[in-house]
Amino acid sequence: MDDRLAVLEARLRELEEDREIRELLARYGYYADAPLDEEYFRLFTEDCVMDVSVGCGENPYEVVRWEGLAEMRRFLGERTSQHDNGFQGRSFHVQGNNLAIKITGDDAVATGYSFILHQDGPTLRLLSASINEWAFRRDDGHWKIQMRKRRMAGAPDAKEVLRAAE
Amino acid sequence: MDDRLAVLEARLRELEEDREIRELLARYGYYADAPLDEEYFRLFTEDCVMDVSVGCGENPYEVVRWEGLAEMRRFLGERTSQHDNGFQGRSFHVQGNNLAIKITGDDAVATGYSFILHQDGPTLRLLSASINEWAFRRDDGHWKIQMRKRRMAGAPDAKEVLRAAE
Amino acid sequence: MDDRLAVLEARLRELEEDREIRELLARYGYYADAPLDEEYFRLFTEDCVMDVSVGCGENPYEVVRWEGLAEMRRFLGERTSQHDNGFQGRSFHVQGNNLAIKITGDDAVATGYSFILHQDGPTLRLLSASINEWAFRRDDGHWKIQMRKRRMAGAPDAKEVLRAAE
Repeated sequence: MDDRLAVLEARLRELEEDREIRELLARYGYYADAPLDEEYFRLFTEDCVMDVSVGCGENPYEVVRWEGLAEMRRFLGERTSQHDNGFQGRSFHVQGNNLAIKITGDDAVATGYSFILHQDGPTLRLLSASINEWAFRRDDGHWKIQMRKRRMAGAPDAKEVLRAAE
Repeated sequence: MDDRLAVLEARLRELEEDREIRELLARYGYYADAPLDEEYFRLFTEDCVMDVSVGCGENPYEVVRWEGLAEMRRFLGERTSQHDNGFQGRSFHVQGNNLAIKITGDDAVATGYSFILHQDGPTLRLLSASINEWAFRRDDGHWKIQMRKRRMAGAPDAKEVLRAAE
Repeated sequence: MDDRLAVLEARLRELEEDREIRELLARYGYYADAPLDEEYFRLFTEDCVMDVSVGCGENPYEVVRWEGLAEMRRFLGERTSQHDNGFQGRSFHVQGNNLAIKITGDDAVATGYSFILHQDGPTLRLLSASINEWAFRRDDGHWKIQMRKRRMAGAPDAKEVLRAAE
């Protein structure tokens, strides 16, 4: 009986964690869009890594990478100042489409599609779509983002990114 | 043993309710789009409140509000007659992106992004994107919508709306 | 006590299956987009049926239907050769919006909205939106797609499609 209960508890816990991670990605969008910068940064581990296709210019598949929360703050500070004419508070970071999540103890990997929309006065624009691999770590009872790999459609490693949570 | 089972049952019930609410929002879209008006109205409580940014005109952040099912029927009757040239039955109300749901007994609050698309002959248009706060009440074993607050990106209360389910 | 445990196990199993089916639809998108053809075909039962609005031409509501994996391979081989100028590996098949899933033993029915986007160089296009009814069968412990009915908005049977998982 005890064994059966322990198995049930573990299976239930996995579903609860799946839900927590989905909601973490939802809040990633909220805090990017509100914007709520400090809440946004608290979603990441101290050693978080961003590894992203630049998505524009001569080689849109070129990958830029920054490591650690300090670098992320610097990068996003620059981005925000570039976006200052009406982007801030007018975006929709849509994170959770085609989501698959694999949980292994205190680590998890998710894959999914993300979109950015921008409300530019009366005009709503679909700015970008990406494929993603996310890594999460459970830290003090809460899931945090440890790594995000974002790629343009057609990126050389697209297949690996899309299979990362199998 | 009984206690452990009772805890499991409560946790499982919460996940089932999370799923029910997600599917309720899916059906909100189906019934708006099909259209299936009576099925749509049955998703709401008698005392339901709609509180929405108008999204157009001189002040797109202006909020209009209607209260109770009778007012909602009147409002939607007018809307339908305005939409009569090809909108009805050609829309996609997409309700469940970036969803976070908080359940407390027979009440629940959800936040999320919504989109409306319109198939206008061969052309597919992305008409609008909104941030939302929803309130639900469990009534006779079924979740119903008691309140929807819909806002344009950049609305003065966007931060509060996006944090309503924390 | 045993009964209570058995009920819990059945309810938990249903939530796990709901999650499996959502992830199956996510992978449908991944494998269509990567592209990973063999992985894509393995998502279907041998007797799978596709039943889809053509979505273009004089009667966009016209339905074409193909049955069995062999026919699907033939159809998709043709489609791929038509799409050869930059579509392949540049698409986003977004499958899981407004999803509702009904599970009955080893069978399941889901309804939902699907979108196709295409990254055409720097331009991202929203190509199409559809309503869908899916049938799944559990085969050797894994859920597979047995039928997909895809319809344009406004199709004559749109109401039935959207209510298929009630």
